[in-house]
Formats: sequence, C-alpha cells, structure tokens
Amino acid sequence: MPLRLFPGASSGRVPGMELDKVRQYLKDNYDRFVQELGEHVRFASVSAQPDHRPQMDACAEWLRAHCQRIGLEARLAPTPGNPVVVAKTPGPRRAGEPVFLVYGHYDVQPADPLELWKSDPFEPRIEKNVMYARGACDNKGQHLAHLNAVEAYLKTGTPLPCHLTFIFEGEEEVGSSNLAAFLAQNQEELACDAVVISDTGMPSRKHPALTYALRGIASLEIKLTGPGRDLHSGIFGGSVDNPAMALCQLLAQLRDKKGRITVPGFYDDVAPLSAFERKQLARLPHSDRDYKKMLGVKALFGEAGYTAWEQRTARPTLEINGLTSGYQGVGSKTIVPSWASAKLTMRLVANQKPRKVLAAVQRHLKKICPPTMKLELHPGHSGDPYLMAPTSPLAKAGLRALQTAFQLEPVLLREGGSIPIVNDFKKILGAETLLLGLSLPDDNAHSPNEKFDLGIFAKGMDMSAALWPELAQVK
Amino acid sequence: MPLRLFPGASSGRVPGMELDKVRQYLKDNYDRFVQELGEHVRFASVSAQPDHRPQMDACAEWLRAHCQRIGLEARLAPTPGNPVVVAKTPGPRRAGEPVFLVYGHYDVQPADPLELWKSDPFEPRIEKNVMYARGACDNKGQHLAHLNAVEAYLKTGTPLPCHLTFIFEGEEEVGSSNLAAFLAQNQEELACDAVVISDTGMPSRKHPALTYALRGIASLEIKLTGPGRDLHSGIFGGSVDNPAMALCQLLAQLRDKKGRITVPGFYDDVAPLSAFERKQLARLPHSDRDYKKMLGVKALFGEAGYTAWEQRTARPTLEINGLTSGYQGVGSKTIVPSWASAKLTMRLVANQKPRKVLAAVQRHLKKICPPTMKLELHPGHSGDPYLMAPTSPLAKAGLRALQTAFQLEPVLLREGGSIPIVNDFKKILGAETLLLGLSLPDDNAHSPNEKFDLGIFAKGMDMSAALWPELAQVK
Repeated sequence: MPLRLFPGASSGRVPGMELDKVRQYLKDNYDRFVQELGEHVRFASVSAQPDHRPQMDACAEWLRAHCQRIGLEARLAPTPGNPVVVAKTPGPRRAGEPVFLVYGHYDVQPADPLELWKSDPFEPRIEKNVMYARGACDNKGQHLAHLNAVEAYLKTGTPLPCHLTFIFEGEEEVGSSNLAAFLAQNQEELACDAVVISDTGMPSRKHPALTYALRGIASLEIKLTGPGRDLHSGIFGGSVDNPAMALCQLLAQLRDKKGRITVPGFYDDVAPLSAFERKQLARLPHSDRDYKKMLGVKALFGEAGYTAWEQRTARPTLEINGLTSGYQGVGSKTIVPSWASAKLTMRLVANQKPRKVLAAVQRHLKKICPPTMKLELHPGHSGDPYLMAPTSPLAKAGLRALQTAFQLEPVLLREGGSIPIVNDFKKILGAETLLLGLSLPDDNAHSPNEKFDLGIFAKGMDMSAALWPELAQVK
Repeated sequence: MPLRLFPGASSGRVPGMELDKVRQYLKDNYDRFVQELGEHVRFASVSAQPDHRPQMDACAEWLRAHCQRIGLEARLAPTPGNPVVVAKTPGPRRAGEPVFLVYGHYDVQPADPLELWKSDPFEPRIEKNVMYARGACDNKGQHLAHLNAVEAYLKTGTPLPCHLTFIFEGEEEVGSSNLAAFLAQNQEELACDAVVISDTGMPSRKHPALTYALRGIASLEIKLTGPGRDLHSGIFGGSVDNPAMALCQLLAQLRDKKGRITVPGFYDDVAPLSAFERKQLARLPHSDRDYKKMLGVKALFGEAGYTAWEQRTARPTLEINGLTSGYQGVGSKTIVPSWASAKLTMRLVANQKPRKVLAAVQRHLKKICPPTMKLELHPGHSGDPYLMAPTSPLAKAGLRALQTAFQLEPVLLREGGSIPIVNDFKKILGAETLLLGLSLPDDNAHSPNEKFDLGIFAKGMDMSAALWPELAQVK
C-alpha cells in the first residue's frame, strides 16, 4: 500500500475562481505556447561547441524578449561565458512578501550522432502530441511551462501571492562554471525563500514526482601517449607498447565485471540508504522487462544488492563517455597509434566530495599506469551531490501543487542526474531547491530524438500556477 | 665478425662499358627524376577513402603515360577496384630469354592526422636531399627507381639481358583484394622467372638489405553494442553496462602486460627462429637508446626472450589500430554510449595461417564477451606470412646488385610488414620474390611527414640497373 506523505487533496487556500481564470487562460493559449516552444528549440544553443556561440546569443535574446512580452521585467546579464537571462515580476516587492526563484537553462547538449535522429534536431516535429527536438525537454519545454503560468497570472490580472525571479543560464550542460560567481555577484537581487527548478524526471506519466536527492558529478579526461607519432604496425609492432591497448588495460581495472568500482577509497563516504528511503523508492514503478526494452539492452546490469532505482539514483558510478585512438575512418590503417584518450564522468552520492573522489581516481591511475606511457589527467567540471529533507513543509507544498495539476498521488524521488548549482543556491543564496521535474524516462534527454510530451507540458503549466499560492502559504 | 654470405665484389659478368653508359644516364637525368617523383606524389591516391577515386584514376593514368614516355609498352588494366598499370619492355621475347616482373603500388595510406604534418602531405617538400610527401617512400619513390633504371637502358640503347614486365597496383594499402584475380586472369602474360619488389626497408643508410621473410596480416573489426541509443549517464548510469568499458575489458584480456598474446592457440603454428637466423639478425645495427629516441617512447616494450629485431620481424603481434566510442568532441557529453568499436590487426609469422588465427581470436572474443553486449566481428583483409631461402642463387644475385650500387656489404633481413601478394606471386605465377627495399626506419611510412632519401633514390636506380645482368645470369 502506498505511503501517504502529505494531505491527499489540494489545500484550497487559493481563491478557486481566480486560479480558474489562470487555468482557463493556459487552456485558451495552449496552441500558441506550443508554437513558442517550437521557436525556442529552433536555436541550436549547444554550449559545448564554441562555434555555436552566435546561436547561444540569439537564443538568450529570444528568451529575454519573450519574458518582456509576457509582462516580466527582463534583461541579459553578461558573464565571462554565455549570458544569463534575468526576469522578474513587475512592481515593487511588498514588505514580507515571499520571493521565489525559478531557474532554467537555455543551453542544450550536442545533437550528434546526427544520423540517428529521425528528423532535424533543431526543427521541431510534432507527432501524437509529442514534440521532437534537441532541448524540447531538457530544458526549454520545462522552463517555458513556468513562464506560461506566470504569463497567465499577469495577463488575467490575477494577483500573485509572491514575487518571482527567473534566471535562465546558458552553461548548464558544460558545468555551469560561471553561475556561482553570478549568484555571488547578484546575491541581494536574487535573494529568495526557495528555488524552484523543473529539470528532473518523473518515473512515468502517472507518477508526478518531487526529487529530494541528486547525484553529484566529477569528470576526468585521460590521455596516454606512447610513441611520438603513429607507427607502422608491421615495421615496429611487437617492440613498442600500444597506447590503445594500454588505455584499455588501465580503464579495465577501474570497474569489476559486476559494476563495482575498484578504485581504492571510492565508496568511503557514501551515505547508505535508510530503510525509509528504500521503502519510498520501492513505491516507484518498475518492470525489468519494460526497463530492458526501453534501454534496448540484451541484459540488465548493475551493482549487486541494489534495485535498478537504487543503482540509478543512490549509488555512485564511473562511466566512460568517450574513447578515441588511432584510425577511425573507413577501411583500415595499420598503425600503432601514438596516443589514446578517454572521457570519464563519475556520478556521486551524498556524502562523496568530487575533489576527494577525483584525487583517489587520479592516484590510482598514476599507480597502475605502465612505465611505457606518458599519462595526462585533465579533471573537468564537478558538482556536489544534493540531499534535502523529503518531509519538510516546502516539500509538502510542492507535492500538493503536483497533486492539484496531475490529479494523481505524487512520488518522492532520488534522481541520478546532476544539477550542481542546486548546491550553489544553498551555499550562496541560503535557499533549498524544490525539484519538480517534467521529463519522462524515454524523453531521450542527451540522446538522439529528444522529445517532450505536450500533455505533460500543459500539466506543468497548471502545476506552476498552483505552486505559488501553496509556497506562499508555507514560507 | 660479420658473416660473408656471398662473393664480396660485383660479379663483373656485365660488360662494364655498357653499364657505365646506363649509370651516366641516371646521373645526367637525376634532377628530372626528382621532379617526376614530385609529380607522382602530388596525386592523393588514398585507396582506403572511396572519395579519392578520381585521384586514384589520375595517378594510374600519369604512371601509364610515364611508362609509355620512357619507352615501355604500357596500358591500364581495369579491375573491380582501382586499375593496374601494366608496362613491358618493347619488342618480342627471344626464346630462352629470362623474364622478370617488377611490382609496385601507386596507392598510399591516408594522410591523417593532418595537423601533425609539417607541410602539405601531397605537395613535395625537399629539405637536405630528402623529399617529404605521403607516398614518397611507400611506394612511389621505390618503383620510380626501377622505372628510371629501365629508362636508362632503353634511352642509351643498352641491351637488356632480360625481358621486363612492370605491374603497379592501386590497392596495396587496402589488402590488394583484386590482385590475385588479376594475376590469375593474366597468368600467361605475367609468367616470369622471378619477381622483384622494392617495398621493404633497410636498417640504416649503411645497411642495404635483402628481405627474406615478411610477416602476414589478419584484420578484425570489433563492435560492442549495449543500449539502443546513447543514454544519459546520470539518469541511467549504474543500472546498465557501458559498452566502452566492456570493450576495454574485452580487449585488455587479449594481451598480457608483457606483450604476450593471451588468445588460446595464438602461438600454435609459429616457426621458431633457427640459430642461423638469430645470428643473421644479430648482425643488424641496433641501439636501445637510439631506438627509443627514434620511436619517441618513454620505455621500450616487447615479448621477453627476444631482441627488438626479433620482436619486430619474427614474432606475431595483436595491435589495436583504432578505438571509437561515444563523444569525442570538445568538452564533455555525459552519456553511456550506445556502442564501442575497435580496429585490430595481427601480424603473423611462418607458419601461422590468417584464417586459423582469426578463428581463434573470434572464438575467444565470443567466449569472453559479457552477456550485456551484442558482439559484432568483421574480419577484414588478410595475408600469409612469407619465407624464402636466404642462401638461394636468386638471393645471392640480389645481394650482389646491392653491393654494386651501395658499395657496402648488404644484410639479410626479416621484415615485420606484410606484402600479402608475395604469396600470390608464388601460388599463381610460381615465382619467388626478391625483396630489395629502399625505405629507412625513420622514413615515416604510414605516419605523418613520410619522407624518402634522395641519395637512396639514386642508389636504388643503380641497384636496379645492376640487377638485371645479375639475375639473367642466375636464372
């Protein structure tokens, strides 16, 4: 029997008639909202690729103008990287009026491998009430849902029970390296009672979810160099070590065949799951058969002693994201390649520290690297894991807004992905973050054929509309 | 003390005056020969890359026209792949007159990685009497040396003591897949007493060499597929196997850390080196320090119990030529990649059979592949190893021609590279092959900044001029 974590029905604290006006406006303007999402995803705002900078700027400017159009006060705030779009509800803040900060990001993952897309990643295609495009779900659709809700309040003249600040950054997919400084520099302007982010997932269409934990991340590039140039494998092969083989042998030693990381000290700081949490996670829908089918794998795989939900959200990982060495074109090239490299990311859980884990992995790699190879290690972006109290008043307010919009009992979730800046909001602004994600497991975030369910888009707007009165009450 | 394997001086069987005329012609026309080599390397005749087909055709046509210009009868013979250039000394063959076949190839290896070239790979650059260009050494310079020698005979009216047939193919770098059929179809026209090929190496400028053994080759592409698409490493990581890691773990099991291949049965048919051969190989120049410096490696590496020359030429290998998986661009992409692949080649020695070795490797890979991965194996081109009697009259004639041209005592060599078609000449034409290579160890064949020493180019012409009288006598 499912646990009941919060009052089952909407609190009814908001004047029904007024919220009805807001909801009606959202219904009446739905077609335009979809069209605007289409405009937003047409920008190839790929932050990882420096040559996409003009598209980044154009996307930021579109978003700023959109905020202005719907009645917010909006500006582009420059950073050493891509600009941040800052928007606020108009008018002065009344004394004691709560302020909430909505965060989103307008940058997207690279679209490649392009050949696996069924249609242009940057030309929205709608099929069966689903929009296919890079960024549709991660994160353009999700932050537009919030903007549509506030538009409905503003355009219907419905008083908002709080002041709202929106910030949309352009570097989430490359580690948000300028956001912490931005928050620190604008600490006063961005001060808030809580942060709201829709950039996480819901386990199914029938399971609206509040996420109370996120995994952290630590990234590392490894390069092994052997000979000073590619060598003829016939003339020299046998008398010189092969960097591609050395890299395979090095990486093979980082994980056992059952999925457990073998770097000494890797699991030292991992907080074990409590019985309460394991019960919550056990409420989540799961079928091995469906999961296997959804991933398209021959067999499931993961650390022994944990359910798939636990493996994905409450256990750390070490993944190879990319391998490069030697000749990769058509046909063959008979060489001993000069070098081989790998991109690694580790997902971390409370209370692992990225710096400590990176140090352990680097120490281990240096120890096991063969004397034939020059080893280069380049640590990249990192972020702490996040854990908030799943039974706090804030969490309960979020759960009620979900219930109102979806008319379904929400679940409590840990999520496997990383939103490193959630820790920055806590450290710099002193605010907890409410994660109310709208992404379905098969939405192909970071994969070809990314999509966003337009039914969920509509429910997301309703959720945002219901959220502000609930949160204002709690504050 | 070096072993003396053949009479130390030229046989003197050729009328001195007449060979002097040939040699003088070669000297007088040297500048033009260098210029013509420059023309030849300007064609980017990369057989591995299908879009280079027009360059292949243009290069073949240039070579045909060149043969015609110097007085040979030449034609382009079509094949299902790139054409073969066939050229012959003019006039009818006298009864009992020996016929020798000279083989070369006008195709070259891909030029990438382009950024490591100091000048355009297809624009010859001459510095300190060395020409830098893709194909300068492998094989355009080497076969032009033979054409220049025959031109000298023809243009000076010096009678050749034999009939000569030249064939230049355009698919050596991709496995010569159409040459065996071509030899079989033209068996009568190509019948000969021996084949001469300059496509091997000499250990140093001071060690002209006859190669009596070549390694064979067997190639294999491996692809592991896990999930049906790239997956978000945060959302799914930990509950699904990673193909890049699985590939590393698979490949890591094929070779131990000391360079010995661990595939069961891999060494079964390897003919051990005789004491005579080990003595011959010990005559070859070698310095660990220089060798390390030349390769640009931190430390040497190879199978225990064998010298570097033995490791490179008389022992089989298994090399990873390329690795590909996931995201390889700038920045990071946090995915569990859908697939990972590797290009492998094995160098084989007498009496290994490519088919048997490939079967053993594939059997082993299937056995150790984890159940989470779909394994695809694509065997590519292969060729038998070659071994000829190093003390035969044919070999001795070749050694004398080398001595005459270089005025140095030649060495007997095993070479680590593969010329699979040497076995076809034996099987189809019934002819042994004399391998008189002109490539120096640092000529960067198959590597960026390939070069050809123009002093060796000139000596190669002299060697070819001296060879025909020597060979005609032996036959």
